[in-house]
Amino acid sequence: MIKVVLIGSGNVAQHLLQVMLKTADIELVQVFARNKNSILHLIAEERITSNYQDIKEADVYIISVSDNAIAEVSNHLLFQNRLVVHTSGTSELSVLDSKNRKGVFYPLQTFSKSKAVDFSTIPICLETKNESDYKTLETLANLVSKKVYSISSEQRKSLHVAAVFVCNFVNHLYQIGNQICDENQVPFEILHPLILETANKITELSPKEAQTGPAVRNDTKTIEKHIEFLQNSNYKEIYTLLTQSIQNV
Amino acid sequence: MIKVVLIGSGNVAQHLLQVMLKTADIELVQVFARNKNSILHLIAEERITSNYQDIKEADVYIISVSDNAIAEVSNHLLFQNRLVVHTSGTSELSVLDSKNRKGVFYPLQTFSKSKAVDFSTIPICLETKNESDYKTLETLANLVSKKVYSISSEQRKSLHVAAVFVCNFVNHLYQIGNQICDENQVPFEILHPLILETANKITELSPKEAQTGPAVRNDTKTIEKHIEFLQNSNYKEIYTLLTQSIQNV
Repeated sequence: MIKVVLIGSGNVAQHLLQVMLKTADIELVQVFARNKNSILHLIAEERITSNYQDIKEADVYIISVSDNAIAEVSNHLLFQNRLVVHTSGTSELSVLDSKNRKGVFYPLQTFSKSKAVDFSTIPICLETKNESDYKTLETLANLVSKKVYSISSEQRKSLHVAAVFVCNFVNHLYQIGNQICDENQVPFEILHPLILETANKITELSPKEAQTGPAVRNDTKTIEKHIEFLQNSNYKEIYTLLTQSIQNV
Repeated sequence: MIKVVLIGSGNVAQHLLQVMLKTADIELVQVFARNKNSILHLIAEERITSNYQDIKEADVYIISVSDNAIAEVSNHLLFQNRLVVHTSGTSELSVLDSKNRKGVFYPLQTFSKSKAVDFSTIPICLETKNESDYKTLETLANLVSKKVYSISSEQRKSLHVAAVFVCNFVNHLYQIGNQICDENQVPFEILHPLILETANKITELSPKEAQTGPAVRNDTKTIEKHIEFLQNSNYKEIYTLLTQSIQNV
């Protein structure tokens, strides 16, 4: 049984809270949240505190707050020499206050409050200063996910940049596609199977092998027609830049 | 029973061939292919011809060749007043020779020769000149797919442009993500669940609702760190443009 105190009540914290509550070998001792209301639907009020002095003893303290608050929160903790980890893809291990043993427990996934996720498929990227803390985090991570990786701060930084490309920017391209459909009275759902297949494909082929379309075929006629078709100058610019980028690979 | 002659032996043609062969109420009368060898593993040689004079009678002739060959192929057909359709997302109905009745049978999906697809989930976009031909195409389309739409040439043009954004450009962003991982000795597979979830998400939320990441949060500090991290000037440019575009929505 691993005892955990979760600090935070945002998006990622709520998903962690839910998975830990239902995992037999994890004891979620307490949640620290300044705003209790946001998690009262998930956990009883007695198990929530907003007072640093009331934080209980645990094997791991997981700080799941916005990046710019991690340092401050870890600094406010009144105990020392315990294992304190953050869940951020962007923050280095070093942002945590040195009075405690440091670690990172980064679940690499896009979380929406309104959409449930299957935690067992989410890669968890771990980092610690020392080996025995790594074992503790690894045990914890294996209880909630089948995919656990040892990732250094430097590697995590690169992963987070890559994630912006394959998730945030990809979603923005979905939004542009949606917009183009709306403007032409075409239901966006027609593109759903294409979107799902495009994502599925790269789990079997490399993205390089999977590339299709006018840019990689060097189909200048179609490319010109498309750029002419796009009225929005921003979309024109994105179309042109990504087409060039595909052709320069 | 609908009788079909398939003209072409490329990527899309081969997927169509396979689904039609296994659909009980479709009789694939014949395949016209200049290069028989590419489809001999799928269909017996007796059912393949490369001679326009030998093309048999059918209810529908499906021309599934490259865009710039559609007009020529439809022109070479020796019969008239039959239903001849193409499978292209970019070509208008009008590229087909007027001696036959025209139509479009456009399966909106990304096809790779090496990867099987479930045809029943692929949206088929139909267009014809007259109502009775539409009924014929609709019957045919319903035999292979559960998703059949009436889409005009103008709408299809917009769909194809949107498809370039949500498929071809998205795949290119996957490739950039893969490259960033490789350069930092991180296995790209760590990003697979994120990629799949990002795609799945927009079947439940609109892309606008689903948008996450530093750009939409206006997290200037992270954005600057990421741009600094990227060595490749092309990637820097894409990062900057897509970040601006997300923030201007």
